[in-house]
Amino acid sequence: MKKTIKPEVVGREGTVLLEAIRRLNRRKAVAHLLKLIDKTHPADIAWVLRYLTPEERHNVFNVIAQTDQIGEILSELDQSIMLELVDDLPPKFMVTVLKKMASNDAADLLEALPVEVADNIRQLMARADREEVDDLLQYNPESAGGLMSPNFMALHEDLSVDEAIRAIQERSEDLEMVFYLYIVRENNQLTGVLSLRELLMHPPYRQLKNIMNPKVIAVNPETDQEEVAHMVSRYNILAVPVVNHAGKLLGIVTVDDVIDVIRKEATEDFFQMAGAGKDDEILMKSIRSNAVTRAPWLCASWVGGVVSATIIALFSGELQKYVILASFLPIINGMGGNIANQSSTIIVRGIATGRVNLEEVFKIVFKEMKVGMLLGGIYGLFLALVVFLALPNPSHLFLVASISVVLEMTLAASIGAFVPLVMKKMGFDAAVATGPFVATTMDIIGTTTFFTTAILLLN
Amino acid sequence: MKKTIKPEVVGREGTVLLEAIRRLNRRKAVAHLLKLIDKTHPADIAWVLRYLTPEERHNVFNVIAQTDQIGEILSELDQSIMLELVDDLPPKFMVTVLKKMASNDAADLLEALPVEVADNIRQLMARADREEVDDLLQYNPESAGGLMSPNFMALHEDLSVDEAIRAIQERSEDLEMVFYLYIVRENNQLTGVLSLRELLMHPPYRQLKNIMNPKVIAVNPETDQEEVAHMVSRYNILAVPVVNHAGKLLGIVTVDDVIDVIRKEATEDFFQMAGAGKDDEILMKSIRSNAVTRAPWLCASWVGGVVSATIIALFSGELQKYVILASFLPIINGMGGNIANQSSTIIVRGIATGRVNLEEVFKIVFKEMKVGMLLGGIYGLFLALVVFLALPNPSHLFLVASISVVLEMTLAASIGAFVPLVMKKMGFDAAVATGPFVATTMDIIGTTTFFTTAILLLN
Repeated sequence: MKKTIKPEVVGREGTVLLEAIRRLNRRKAVAHLLKLIDKTHPADIAWVLRYLTPEERHNVFNVIAQTDQIGEILSELDQSIMLELVDDLPPKFMVTVLKKMASNDAADLLEALPVEVADNIRQLMARADREEVDDLLQYNPESAGGLMSPNFMALHEDLSVDEAIRAIQERSEDLEMVFYLYIVRENNQLTGVLSLRELLMHPPYRQLKNIMNPKVIAVNPETDQEEVAHMVSRYNILAVPVVNHAGKLLGIVTVDDVIDVIRKEATEDFFQMAGAGKDDEILMKSIRSNAVTRAPWLCASWVGGVVSATIIALFSGELQKYVILASFLPIINGMGGNIANQSSTIIVRGIATGRVNLEEVFKIVFKEMKVGMLLGGIYGLFLALVVFLALPNPSHLFLVASISVVLEMTLAASIGAFVPLVMKKMGFDAAVATGPFVATTMDIIGTTTFFTTAILLLN
Repeated sequence: MKKTIKPEVVGREGTVLLEAIRRLNRRKAVAHLLKLIDKTHPADIAWVLRYLTPEERHNVFNVIAQTDQIGEILSELDQSIMLELVDDLPPKFMVTVLKKMASNDAADLLEALPVEVADNIRQLMARADREEVDDLLQYNPESAGGLMSPNFMALHEDLSVDEAIRAIQERSEDLEMVFYLYIVRENNQLTGVLSLRELLMHPPYRQLKNIMNPKVIAVNPETDQEEVAHMVSRYNILAVPVVNHAGKLLGIVTVDDVIDVIRKEATEDFFQMAGAGKDDEILMKSIRSNAVTRAPWLCASWVGGVVSATIIALFSGELQKYVILASFLPIINGMGGNIANQSSTIIVRGIATGRVNLEEVFKIVFKEMKVGMLLGGIYGLFLALVVFLALPNPSHLFLVASISVVLEMTLAASIGAFVPLVMKKMGFDAAVATGPFVATTMDIIGTTTFFTTAILLLN
């Protein structure tokens, strides 16, 4: 018996695999390619496809299409690549592929296809398969209904342990994760849960309803996927049953699907704050659609810049007298922008991890304000010192510079914390408008504060 | 039989629980408090403790200390709160608490305590318990060894299915997730894996070695936790066995511990880029330590600002002639900083999700450069238009402004993409220095580019 302790393929091992597939494809060694694909985990093949040229990808995919792994590989692919590859396949072939996929993955694929293509394929599917997929397609893909798999193990509460074990042995392989057994009564009403291990702990004649755990953590099909992820990670469970409002068990969401959600949602907020859109595939896209996704935030920033320029122009009389004032603009705006960004990031993450309690908006903002004042005081003092030492005739300039830094950083930390909290409180996504809005606001406030301070202290 | 479909406690339900515990504590209704704690999930109690005042927390924790849930509640707490609460407990009592915790959680707690306190407790522990914890303490807490639990189900390959089932029934409750059975030979050499369901599928007399899956995805105790998380999410597995270099099975890392890692690591990069440190508990900390964590990045930004100020001072002759130039500074630096931030964010996330292939540094940077040029062209054109329309005597100013925007945004997108790629390639954490370094660099480059363009075009 050979023991294969298989390390992760990413990194050097990934490159080796990538090169091997490239070489075999170049030589048109289909038999070898088939063997290699068969030996490799579908997730690793999906990874390789990402780095092939479109032509190589097309050729290799034609080989993959001959294997049983095609369904699993498709469901591991980035959506843009999946669509590109599936485009060539005849609808009839797609039906056989979809049959090999888990029904929630099949529904995801159909959802991603252009409507007419998907409809074509659906028409050709066997009725039972089509109904299963259609059931899933009715839910929002970002809800528990969109994530769930209808292939779970449900047993009637009147069964004995022995009967339950026999039922498990008989059910085919295509069930998702048979680790939890869901216990139901008439009409598939969920009444309890039992782990496979717990089942084995009891004598064969005992009825499931007497050993099951009646406290089930469950969700509805409309529950947002982020909330499902929250529950799985909070309560350390491996699968969540999905029940409708009448208590009927519809499906289960398993932890492996939840992991993808957690990874995506955790970084999505920051992605949005940086103005890189909600789209996690931006790296796989063309220059044009990349630019289109990013343009809106830059637009906000551009408007902020033009407003700042107008404000500065209004103060051009002052500037003419004290040209040196211009040199403080970058440091004032820079420090304000950065500390605001820190505050927003801390709050957005706090909202995501649940550490921010929305009842305490005032307390949180007040704390950030104090942090801003403390840091502003320190860096303002440094700046005053530098100005005092560097300029031949510092007059009141060192006061202007340092007071502006303190004011700007105090305001920036407060606003940076306040905006995401208020967004969230009003039911918006905390991250969407935070980045552009806060950065632009701080540019304008910084410029105004600075020149107002200058006029008050220099005249 | 009562069916309890229990929704998540966070949100309104959380507040209700929080208020109930507050009220019972105020009334000193210990018996009721005990009952409520007993009925509530430890994760929810941990959540409540976060929002109590220190005094309330102290009192409620004294009640918790009387329950069997204390171990589980402690392991769900934020570290800073856990340390605050544990501080009051006598070492002898701590020993009984640690006995109730999973050994990897116990090791984490001991690791967090001050060395003398932890040593005191360790001395009092039973030898077997101490050895188990000491074994875990030898590994880096951010490695597979630091995450793993030594309580797994390992069975000898010569056992029959029937013997295996009996072994499972006999083993006590304290094993982590008995869903995968690890199959070993002499000296605990890992040879295969078998799910509990697969075990049930075979006749009782068959030997485990003939039905197990010999292809095991495993890690070493030194494997970084981020890599473990990568494997779990890539291969959709629920637990990874940890083996030493001789192939001996040491423990398992379960998916619930990996979820915490994924959540932390996914947001950590962005947290670091924003200069908010690596510390995810910053919200729970005092104003002073909050400020200390954030000061370093602001320091980089401050230095950048002072350098910018010096550069602007060098151009003060030009500024004196064309005071209007000063009004373009915020827009040039703002657009550059923002697009650089977008590029860095996209690349850092791409590295985390594996979508960035480090072999293609040049290609990726070049693509970002083109995106920057495209967006710079658009916003530069807008700016030229505004300047041309707004100023009574635009002369060459509209050219200066627009060319500077194009140059700055092209450079910014390239540098923003380049820095994290190079950091990663050199083996550093891509996020650590990206934020401060890129922002500061762009301020300096922006100012210099702008004035150089101005001198070339205006004189």
